[in-house]
Amino acid sequence: MTRTIAQQAQLALLLEVATTPKPGNVDRRHDHEDLRFEHFLAGAAGANDGLRALADPDGPPIGVAFERAVEGMSDQSGGNTQFGGLLLLAPLVRAGALGEVTSERARRIAEGTGVEDAVGFYRAFEHVDVAVADPPEDMDALDVRHGSDAVPAVRERGLSLYDVLERSTDHDEIAREWTGSFERTFDAAAAIEERDGPVTDRAGDVFLDMLAADPDTFVAINHGAEVAEDVRERAAAARDGHIDADDLADELVEEGINPGTTADLLAGGLFVALYRGVDV
Amino acid sequence: MTRTIAQQAQLALLLEVATTPKPGNVDRRHDHEDLRFEHFLAGAAGANDGLRALADPDGPPIGVAFERAVEGMSDQSGGNTQFGGLLLLAPLVRAGALGEVTSERARRIAEGTGVEDAVGFYRAFEHVDVAVADPPEDMDALDVRHGSDAVPAVRERGLSLYDVLERSTDHDEIAREWTGSFERTFDAAAAIEERDGPVTDRAGDVFLDMLAADPDTFVAINHGAEVAEDVRERAAAARDGHIDADDLADELVEEGINPGTTADLLAGGLFVALYRGVDV
Repeated sequence: MTRTIAQQAQLALLLEVATTPKPGNVDRRHDHEDLRFEHFLAGAAGANDGLRALADPDGPPIGVAFERAVEGMSDQSGGNTQFGGLLLLAPLVRAGALGEVTSERARRIAEGTGVEDAVGFYRAFEHVDVAVADPPEDMDALDVRHGSDAVPAVRERGLSLYDVLERSTDHDEIAREWTGSFERTFDAAAAIEERDGPVTDRAGDVFLDMLAADPDTFVAINHGAEVAEDVRERAAAARDGHIDADDLADELVEEGINPGTTADLLAGGLFVALYRGVDV
Repeated sequence: MTRTIAQQAQLALLLEVATTPKPGNVDRRHDHEDLRFEHFLAGAAGANDGLRALADPDGPPIGVAFERAVEGMSDQSGGNTQFGGLLLLAPLVRAGALGEVTSERARRIAEGTGVEDAVGFYRAFEHVDVAVADPPEDMDALDVRHGSDAVPAVRERGLSLYDVLERSTDHDEIAREWTGSFERTFDAAAAIEERDGPVTDRAGDVFLDMLAADPDTFVAINHGAEVAEDVRERAAAARDGHIDADDLADELVEEGINPGTTADLLAGGLFVALYRGVDV
């Protein structure tokens, strides 16, 4: 194994987008009209220096390295490609740099973030439009859509990135992973490890299982909870063989429904699986 | 534009393999049985540190950086994915690091290589099996298939990498580019720039034009000159609309014919086009 931690992380992003079918998402065989496969390739290539900063045990705070990764990712015309994936990877990659990729270590890194991490996170929103939920009314000053303009409020309140994400756990699965135990990420990794065959085939099965298990929070933010539950049910039907997964993929692309958070979780799972030695 | 030269080079490798149809090659919609799309993704991710060494104006000799890129590329189970592409990129990427990617500058870099570059080149063959032609009888000591064992002979004769490649120009198009003016590479870049639309669509058209114009030397090495000429004629028929390019792609994959050198030239052309500002 000669791949570095940063290379494993980048490869996880590439394998994620290559995995097909991944109903509703851009994959090897599916594009959305304005968000295409090549945008994800450019996003992964551009994220490289930020990933290397995350993989450096003496690197900057992970929120700062994350911002660097998002800045590089954004140098393409498709818009947001891997913001959520990079956010999920940040503590996992740093965990690998500091010793071992375990949920405990990633959790300690997440809990150990400070104000500068939160500042990097807010600044990352300057580089790309990310679909997010409205904040509670009393939280307007901390709306991520303010980007850098929210930094004074973040500093004044002394919020860490962990604190910020903790306020989004009701509607964002990546925030739940970060402030929980990265349970779904490590479950995805284990499921990839258990299977046989080409890694993107395994990842396709695991994606369908994940989408069938829980409503995608990115779909819920963009289309509402009912649509997210409907997508979950259709994914379960595909997983159980009642409908064809490839047909579902075509349908969801046509409907403009993009279960991006489940794809982000898959990228995290692929990174952990690669780190543990799954071959490509 | 925030992508670095190394990131542009890596993205060129990724866009090359994503480009479809690219008859006979692995692409977004085609795999060979033991050489699959994901192997190329892993190859590109693994090549990153070598590409960064190539993109460093104070970096090691390009042959040494090339070996590092090939070593990283080889950490996947598919075998040779981008050896030729990396060899072609080496002087182009260093040219970008030293000022500007022009054929003149790349040519000067190629001509300026020394014995250590040649040593790196031979050592690169230790990392991966590369299909090559038999050397002339009096050249057996310099057969690249000897890998590091040929290094004493290289040193004794004081051969540069340019010298070594000059001896392969009769049967290898990458050697011709290196010891010529990188003409087909820069022609490919210009053809990509002239077209409109998504960059991988443009690259697909350019690939077919290139395959229709000249017999692929990698096909000639593996299957003989007649087969290479037959592939050229079929590519011309596809370009001219007499047969379907997607059908040709399926046929060539089935026949186990892989016009890899034309794909390498496309990777070089994509790099130059990205460097000059073609958007993704």
